[in-house]
Amino acid sequence: MVDIVIVGSVALDSVKTPFGAVSDALGGAASYAAFAASFFSRPGIVGVVGDDFPEEHIELLRSRDISTAGIKTSNGKTFRWSGYYEYDMNQAHTTETQLNVFENFSPELPEDYKKSKNLFLANIDPALQLTVLSQMNPKLVVADTMNYWIEKKREQLMEVIKKSNVFLLNDSEARELLKTTNLISAGRKMLSLGPDAVIIKKGEDGALLLTDSKIFSLPGYPLENVRDPTGAGDSFAGAFIGYLSKNGFDESSVRKAIVYGSAVASFNVEDFSLNRLKKITMNDIEARYSEFEAMVRF
Amino acid sequence: MVDIVIVGSVALDSVKTPFGAVSDALGGAASYAAFAASFFSRPGIVGVVGDDFPEEHIELLRSRDISTAGIKTSNGKTFRWSGYYEYDMNQAHTTETQLNVFENFSPELPEDYKKSKNLFLANIDPALQLTVLSQMNPKLVVADTMNYWIEKKREQLMEVIKKSNVFLLNDSEARELLKTTNLISAGRKMLSLGPDAVIIKKGEDGALLLTDSKIFSLPGYPLENVRDPTGAGDSFAGAFIGYLSKNGFDESSVRKAIVYGSAVASFNVEDFSLNRLKKITMNDIEARYSEFEAMVRF
Repeated sequence: MVDIVIVGSVALDSVKTPFGAVSDALGGAASYAAFAASFFSRPGIVGVVGDDFPEEHIELLRSRDISTAGIKTSNGKTFRWSGYYEYDMNQAHTTETQLNVFENFSPELPEDYKKSKNLFLANIDPALQLTVLSQMNPKLVVADTMNYWIEKKREQLMEVIKKSNVFLLNDSEARELLKTTNLISAGRKMLSLGPDAVIIKKGEDGALLLTDSKIFSLPGYPLENVRDPTGAGDSFAGAFIGYLSKNGFDESSVRKAIVYGSAVASFNVEDFSLNRLKKITMNDIEARYSEFEAMVRF
Repeated sequence: MVDIVIVGSVALDSVKTPFGAVSDALGGAASYAAFAASFFSRPGIVGVVGDDFPEEHIELLRSRDISTAGIKTSNGKTFRWSGYYEYDMNQAHTTETQLNVFENFSPELPEDYKKSKNLFLANIDPALQLTVLSQMNPKLVVADTMNYWIEKKREQLMEVIKKSNVFLLNDSEARELLKTTNLISAGRKMLSLGPDAVIIKKGEDGALLLTDSKIFSLPGYPLENVRDPTGAGDSFAGAFIGYLSKNGFDESSVRKAIVYGSAVASFNVEDFSLNRLKKITMNDIEARYSEFEAMVRF
């Protein structure tokens, strides 16, 4: 039995930043999200890898009690992303995307995943996100997307938003999707489509939560040493749904979940791949949560 | 007797945004800052205008109990700034700057201003900011600047920073001045120059306060209707020093002063020139302060 089903990419990333580089390191939205969620509850991943996927990565996930029963191994190569960041770490530059086995990915949920009450639909084709929704009946659906789907699959993406409890996206995506420069207007328009909550991620400037009657705004954690921003949004989402799966879905929990999400994401960007998250404990996360409390108090 | 001396430009602004336009409207850093400060205490302006400066603007300032004894009228035309904003309201585009009488501005403090305990050095030539500092001995010095002076008068600007208690600047200026993309690093480097506090203004993303041991981060007020961002930074600074002049200079007051500054600035951008600030009361400001409290609570 898993607490949360996480559907998305499991990838091998090659990333270069002004502070270092990695080749074919464990990446992908589902990997980051599941690892982050595993601090709070038991996630299971639905994804696909190629027959070249290193067994050590599977072992790493299992060592965190993450279920990998939903990760299918197909003949061929694993999805690969290559990119770099310059000094402005808010902007990822893609040099190559090799879909490989991910090109024909069709999410199939193991039987016992279908009873899970919590679902995180990481950034994949909204058509596939809808396929997953048709296979289960979760209480809490958190969904993410990216600009590519806003441009290519707008209608299906709107369906996903309608069926989500919490819809996540970053600031430039929110502006593009709702065709307004004003983030609050964009957020309110998204809310009117159906979700209970919309979270707009603003990178180093924090996150904005809109619910029917309220706005919550959390500044970014003040980091001096960002080595690799890859996976920040996914680790945020993973910790967010991880916390909610244990603490229920109400305004107060959602706010706290955003703080935990931001805390875990702030660790994640301090090193490449999952290297930083591998080293931290729940105590470290709680310490950063307390730092957030002290930082916004007046 | 004035509580705060505010030194800076008094201008006639012509501004166009997607939401309207004004011609030769009351503007300038000192006007915005003094008006904002007047909600909290009694400011006096040190500046210069031409003989074309409309008497009604002086009357407006006096109606707020702002001392205009330090505003000199010179033969010639008043300083004029013309600019526009596109949908990205974070970016001002200058179409024309006519220095006019401001070109030979040399700040001279009326005798009774010199005993004031609080000084706001708005954005002017750092050489002039130093001239003002040599004429008085305030307890609290808050100073602002802009990219032009970072590029043209770096050394004198560094002197101003050294002699300030609180140094204010926006995020792109902080990055440029300290030659780092990381705002926290930039803030810490500025602190090491001597001020007790550094405030980095991030427009709609709020403000960051760095003191020796602590960081305070306030998100931006969620505005759906920004009509004209002109004067946001100056009204922030005016309310900030206005609050501090009445409540003392310690960590807790500085945090509260940032919230009041942000509240007043958030009103200011809702209309052109000082049109919005003319209509609000201290009750409106307190209401927005409470909204900030609710918005960051978790």
